[in-house]
Amino acid sequence: MALIVQKYGGSSVADGELIKSVARRVAKAKDEGNQVIVVVSAMGDTTDELIKLAHQVSEQPGERELDVLLSTGEVISSTLLAMALENLGYEAVSLSGAQAGIQTDSSYSRARIRRVDPKRVVNELNKGNIVIIAGFQGVTADMDVTTLGRGGSDTTAVALAVALNARMCQIYTDVEGVYAADPRLVPEAGKLKEVGYEEMLELASYGVKVMHPRAVELAELYNIPILVASSFSDSPGTIICKEASMEVRNKVRGIAHDTNVAKITVVGVPDHPGIAAAIFEPLTRASISVDTIVQNASVENITDLTFTVARDDLVKAMSIVEPVIKSIGAKRCVADSTLAKVSIVGTGMQNTPGYAAKMFRTLFKEGINIQLITTSEIRITCIISEDRVKDATQALHRAFELEKFA
Amino acid sequence: MALIVQKYGGSSVADGELIKSVARRVAKAKDEGNQVIVVVSAMGDTTDELIKLAHQVSEQPGERELDVLLSTGEVISSTLLAMALENLGYEAVSLSGAQAGIQTDSSYSRARIRRVDPKRVVNELNKGNIVIIAGFQGVTADMDVTTLGRGGSDTTAVALAVALNARMCQIYTDVEGVYAADPRLVPEAGKLKEVGYEEMLELASYGVKVMHPRAVELAELYNIPILVASSFSDSPGTIICKEASMEVRNKVRGIAHDTNVAKITVVGVPDHPGIAAAIFEPLTRASISVDTIVQNASVENITDLTFTVARDDLVKAMSIVEPVIKSIGAKRCVADSTLAKVSIVGTGMQNTPGYAAKMFRTLFKEGINIQLITTSEIRITCIISEDRVKDATQALHRAFELEKFA
Repeated sequence: MALIVQKYGGSSVADGELIKSVARRVAKAKDEGNQVIVVVSAMGDTTDELIKLAHQVSEQPGERELDVLLSTGEVISSTLLAMALENLGYEAVSLSGAQAGIQTDSSYSRARIRRVDPKRVVNELNKGNIVIIAGFQGVTADMDVTTLGRGGSDTTAVALAVALNARMCQIYTDVEGVYAADPRLVPEAGKLKEVGYEEMLELASYGVKVMHPRAVELAELYNIPILVASSFSDSPGTIICKEASMEVRNKVRGIAHDTNVAKITVVGVPDHPGIAAAIFEPLTRASISVDTIVQNASVENITDLTFTVARDDLVKAMSIVEPVIKSIGAKRCVADSTLAKVSIVGTGMQNTPGYAAKMFRTLFKEGINIQLITTSEIRITCIISEDRVKDATQALHRAFELEKFA
Repeated sequence: MALIVQKYGGSSVADGELIKSVARRVAKAKDEGNQVIVVVSAMGDTTDELIKLAHQVSEQPGERELDVLLSTGEVISSTLLAMALENLGYEAVSLSGAQAGIQTDSSYSRARIRRVDPKRVVNELNKGNIVIIAGFQGVTADMDVTTLGRGGSDTTAVALAVALNARMCQIYTDVEGVYAADPRLVPEAGKLKEVGYEEMLELASYGVKVMHPRAVELAELYNIPILVASSFSDSPGTIICKEASMEVRNKVRGIAHDTNVAKITVVGVPDHPGIAAAIFEPLTRASISVDTIVQNASVENITDLTFTVARDDLVKAMSIVEPVIKSIGAKRCVADSTLAKVSIVGTGMQNTPGYAAKMFRTLFKEGINIQLITTSEIRITCIISEDRVKDATQALHRAFELEKFA
């Protein structure tokens, strides 16, 4: 008997009817002879409503209490799904993160899973129960409730799949899988049947919002295959797994884009050791992630330093950088928040020349100016003007013939 | 430093503003130099909304899952109150019933508290925290969540007061205390400064809805004084405690009334042993409480048997009694659901003659027919027509001069 972990996102369990429909999907997996664990997110916008409540009673709700409050959202959806399954005649039991043995550190609102003690879960599975587990939450050694932060429920699902050596972790959401490019920009973009963990990580980090990189990393580490599919259709979805390296396939797998980008340029920086540290250390202390960093070749020991941050962080970042400018003797700093990233991703690009050149030539032919370039082994990213993202994505989709390989 | 347990009902924490107002009351108790534990109910009609959700996904939600679902209501209000206190600059921490060590049997939806293990609560008090505890819930030995049924949050509060040897348990609600009669019927009815446990139990069982008898019994057993007061005013409220027997005071303390009454009369019952058991045992098995039972003197070995049940149970009770009628050879049974109980309650009535006679005379003078009479040592109850309840209550309030002694 195989063990399957399924996870349903908030939009998949947004109301009573949807929960009943999810129950039928879960029942089907059970009927097919599997042991089934289901991880659920909170219903629809429950989490936002709970946050609103918290702000009605407190200007700055404490993290411990906020975690307790938010954790109730997933408890509610898990118990409703268990009821819906019982109503269909199946044995089901809901468990909180604490009951399911999801043990975390005590970093409230962004806790990390330390270990999973699946004793109770195994016990319930052995009794023949479908086990429904509240996602996004865990418990500290002191039995205080924590939440896992972004991508939390996906991480709960993968962690349970790892701890119980599940055959597969299935992530059901409101999209049908991973596309070669965003279908809102490229209507003909095809859905990928399969994508490698590394590729998915690069796509997720560069704008494909299907899964949080954190859960993908965990799955990669323990080699658990993930199916991403829609809970609203029977479309087959995309499998994230170790690459099918024996297969001849397209080298560029997908095009990611992200408009949450802002650029800061520090002009007239004296080029001597310690300058970069003086600028970036205060940003790190303020938890601001700096992405691309480019330093121009120095002319007469004066250079320009350009870097990007998330657009949400721009105001905070500028307020930190501006006082530093004076102390290091730079001239001024300039912000630009009208930018976007466009990336091509594919493991096959490693050790194969020509992809970068083809990307740059394609954008040039469209008249799109490249402001900054950054690369990893399996990704090339260009920072361009935000209003050309759609043109860029469509042109790259054509140039790399992605419609053929989806 | 004294320890006080406060409990706030659902209407006292129904929205963000009310929770902030409760936080100010709690803070005041802390400022006065007390250690403070607060037990909260779910906000306003949260519990009803959760039950509605359950019925959207299941025709008959399982008790275990329903308890998990309902328990979230009190977790939400407890954590919001903790946030509101932190916002006022106080150290506060919320605990679920499980965290507070409220250990119960596993009778879901009506669990009984087995013991309280207040280790964590004591620990948090010693750190200087105000401890906010989710009422109405506990946890089984297997760490499954239970709810305590009717009067659950009051019982949580008293149980904690007992376990921690608190100086007092304060129950804050939407009424200002215990009145000598229902102010909706008798506008001049006075509020009692003090009432004995036994008197409160009789009043509660016979229609005064301020506190559930269960919590009063527990307080009596361990002699914990209870203050019942409004969370919406600074009015002093009523103290429920061992009687102040040294005090000369009015012997009738209050008038209770209850319209949830129906009468069943079985006509033409053969008067031989075993008949009463044949009628009442099936009702007990169906969890129907039978209240007053009256059997007429038998004429030619034929008698009539009359008893009352809660009006909500009448249809079920009739469906159980009707088949029994035939099997025991009785003639027929007749139901009447237009009745009500009116009771006078007071410990001083014990061993003092004349109260019953005065009550009957008062009702007679008002032209109110008494259908059945039932008494305890400290209570006399008359069952009368529902449409005369107001007249009866007003007349009894006058006759026993309750306006003087409130």
